[in-house]
Amino acid sequence: MGFDLEGSGQILARTPRLLRTLLEGLPDELVRADYGPGTWSPHEVVGHLIHGDLTDWLPRARLVLERGEAVAFEPFDRAGHAALCREKSLGELLDYFATVRETNLAQLRAMALTGHDLARRGRHPALGPATLGQLLTTWVVHDLNHIAQICKALAFQHKEAVGPWQAYLSILAPPAPR
Amino acid sequence: MGFDLEGSGQILARTPRLLRTLLEGLPDELVRADYGPGTWSPHEVVGHLIHGDLTDWLPRARLVLERGEAVAFEPFDRAGHAALCREKSLGELLDYFATVRETNLAQLRAMALTGHDLARRGRHPALGPATLGQLLTTWVVHDLNHIAQICKALAFQHKEAVGPWQAYLSILAPPAPR
Repeated sequence: MGFDLEGSGQILARTPRLLRTLLEGLPDELVRADYGPGTWSPHEVVGHLIHGDLTDWLPRARLVLERGEAVAFEPFDRAGHAALCREKSLGELLDYFATVRETNLAQLRAMALTGHDLARRGRHPALGPATLGQLLTTWVVHDLNHIAQICKALAFQHKEAVGPWQAYLSILAPPAPR
Repeated sequence: MGFDLEGSGQILARTPRLLRTLLEGLPDELVRADYGPGTWSPHEVVGHLIHGDLTDWLPRARLVLERGEAVAFEPFDRAGHAALCREKSLGELLDYFATVRETNLAQLRAMALTGHDLARRGRHPALGPATLGQLLTTWVVHDLNHIAQICKALAFQHKEAVGPWQAYLSILAPPAPR
């Protein structure tokens, strides 16, 4: 299943609302807790999603259209959300994410991409050649990945409190090594 | 973190709305697709959540309060949602889930559980003794587990379409054996 703004691409527009539904008003000790060394709290994941929307997806899409494979994408800074997360509460991050995502999707729609555009190739600095369609599909799957990660972080804070049921809940398995 | 309807227990009331935000109006080939042998599609997961709300969580809670450890819980039928899923569209399941969950939470609130109640023990048919608080916390984590599972099922339909990024997306790892 490839990229289609009217198909699974609809998910991009829904993620900010979904995260607000899941997270708004939950106790701070829940949304600020990670699930092990090197993992992120829900608060950090929302910061990471904003950082990606500001620096990664659309800038890369424009680079594919303008330069093709001639210029590799800027490497993405996986720690680039640290300042954002220090400065903003979860509520502020959720508001900011909603605005940034809405702006980005308006710009994406204005690009009026054709099938020919989606087949154009750019160059990832580590992964090599990749099409614009693959980039935009990855944006969708990346959202899903991080929604699932937030669920895992929330679940982990209840690891002891579920008692014997821990054995039945796969979400409580230790995080995969990075 | 134990069970608290005003803390992480708030998640229980939000899950139907969250699933509607995530799933409503997505293409049928997306919401009806599982992610490998023995796994469930998003459509099936919503059916499973309804079946759990109808037969598992509150009936078990009442049994703990009424009989303690004297009577083991009815075993839960993991395939019990099959008829429901055959009969109902995703939109109908989402509506049904919202109603059933709302009714259950109203009944749970009416039970006005005390700390003493939450510490009472029942008996799981396979796992043995478990407290009411552990049961209700498991209800919350079970929701999170299945929201994450739905994200995985949606993501999997794009496994090929993300091209080289597959290597970076942990949600596209094969499902754990059951």
